[in-house]
Amino acid sequence: MVLRFPFKQRSRSYESDEHERGACEWCEYALVITLATVLLIGVSALTIFWTFFYREGYAWADELPEKQFNLHPTLMVAGFITFSGFSVLLYRICRCFRRIYVKLLHAIFHALAFPCIVIGFLAVLDFHNKKGINNFYSLHSWIGFVAMGLFGIQYVVGFFSFLLLLICNKGTANFRASLVPIHAAFGILTFVLGVCACLTGLTEKALFTLGAERYSGLPDEGVIINAIGVAIIAILAVVMYIVSRNKFKADSRDMTASVDL
Amino acid sequence: MVLRFPFKQRSRSYESDEHERGACEWCEYALVITLATVLLIGVSALTIFWTFFYREGYAWADELPEKQFNLHPTLMVAGFITFSGFSVLLYRICRCFRRIYVKLLHAIFHALAFPCIVIGFLAVLDFHNKKGINNFYSLHSWIGFVAMGLFGIQYVVGFFSFLLLLICNKGTANFRASLVPIHAAFGILTFVLGVCACLTGLTEKALFTLGAERYSGLPDEGVIINAIGVAIIAILAVVMYIVSRNKFKADSRDMTASVDL
Repeated sequence: MVLRFPFKQRSRSYESDEHERGACEWCEYALVITLATVLLIGVSALTIFWTFFYREGYAWADELPEKQFNLHPTLMVAGFITFSGFSVLLYRICRCFRRIYVKLLHAIFHALAFPCIVIGFLAVLDFHNKKGINNFYSLHSWIGFVAMGLFGIQYVVGFFSFLLLLICNKGTANFRASLVPIHAAFGILTFVLGVCACLTGLTEKALFTLGAERYSGLPDEGVIINAIGVAIIAILAVVMYIVSRNKFKADSRDMTASVDL
Repeated sequence: MVLRFPFKQRSRSYESDEHERGACEWCEYALVITLATVLLIGVSALTIFWTFFYREGYAWADELPEKQFNLHPTLMVAGFITFSGFSVLLYRICRCFRRIYVKLLHAIFHALAFPCIVIGFLAVLDFHNKKGINNFYSLHSWIGFVAMGLFGIQYVVGFFSFLLLLICNKGTANFRASLVPIHAAFGILTFVLGVCACLTGLTEKALFTLGAERYSGLPDEGVIINAIGVAIIAILAVVMYIVSRNKFKADSRDMTASVDL
């Protein structure tokens, strides 16, 4: 009985006694996580700056459709990149938390991303209808549609499987454990699709707003739009690096054991 | 001595005696590899069809700059998607080959991708210069530039480290083994950047060639351009799935042992 208690404790957190991390590894970890945090917050801040400085801010009114459109890039970047990015990285950032808290934070960050994506989508749909522009004709909209669909399915499946099914903790442990890699793989795919949707959207916006000729002269606004794209690419690179680094992951024994919570 | 021989043999191939694959696993493997092959060949075929059917084919002449431009999407899709895609998947497709042959095939596929990317880049550079259009102003060109740079670095590093350093096989084994995950991670990143460059490029091309109004009516050519983009997204999903599936990988002991070759 005395022996079982510490094992139980360890299985519920990301901390592993067996694998002490060296100073060098901690430095790399801290550096990469800080970089990811700065980029994830920075890309949304840059999008808001672009909107206020070059596109006259936000609105939701029939007589100001252009300002209403501005909600679309801002909320989609916030939803698909900033909140979703943090939500993915939580499993690497909060290594010393109990797993149930990380799960709840993961769900909360996605719950923050959800209204951003829905309102961001409604903003452009309403803008198109007000201006008499067709919906869902461009490659950007097709990618975005698939990304939104995957996001919704992932959220519903994740919420029911990893939170609600905890009511029947032991009976569903195997099912939940087998679902983890599928949920993780589709989560990364949704994130990458979100990145692709943002990049094609920024390309469209630059050409629609600046026009091909002005854009080719690379005015200040063009640089800002490109910089948002570059920041998204940098986030993609950092997220892929962090996710692929086994050393950043919780100990594999902990991961398997902790699926019970 | 008798015992060492079969171990040596196994360490040089992807075949593992310890892990026999079930019928279900083989079915999934065959299905996914077939799907990847069809998509990788299909996307290049579709791009060539688009060029001949809607864009009047290819040329490299001062009086036909538009036809010269057509080399750009075709060769970039061939280089960054088809050849690079096969090159990445070789490590999952050729599981029963000796590792050195897989390495050589990997190098050959990248050697095929290399001139495609170089000529594809020169085609658009020359087109821009002939038409008096600025170079490297768009987000697409920035992403493409980074993707090309990474591709070049990866090729040089890979060629020297994993092929030339075999001259000093034992002395460099540890160095090469430590380089494998870095080379693999940057390889996937290069592939994803290639995908992003293709998608933003297709968006630009649709808007430049069809114009915003015609594109929004979704003419046949718009559907074909979008279909190329969707095929690229499907390839990305399948490649990420195959790469993430541990079951498709060679046995981990084989992987470590086979780094000697």
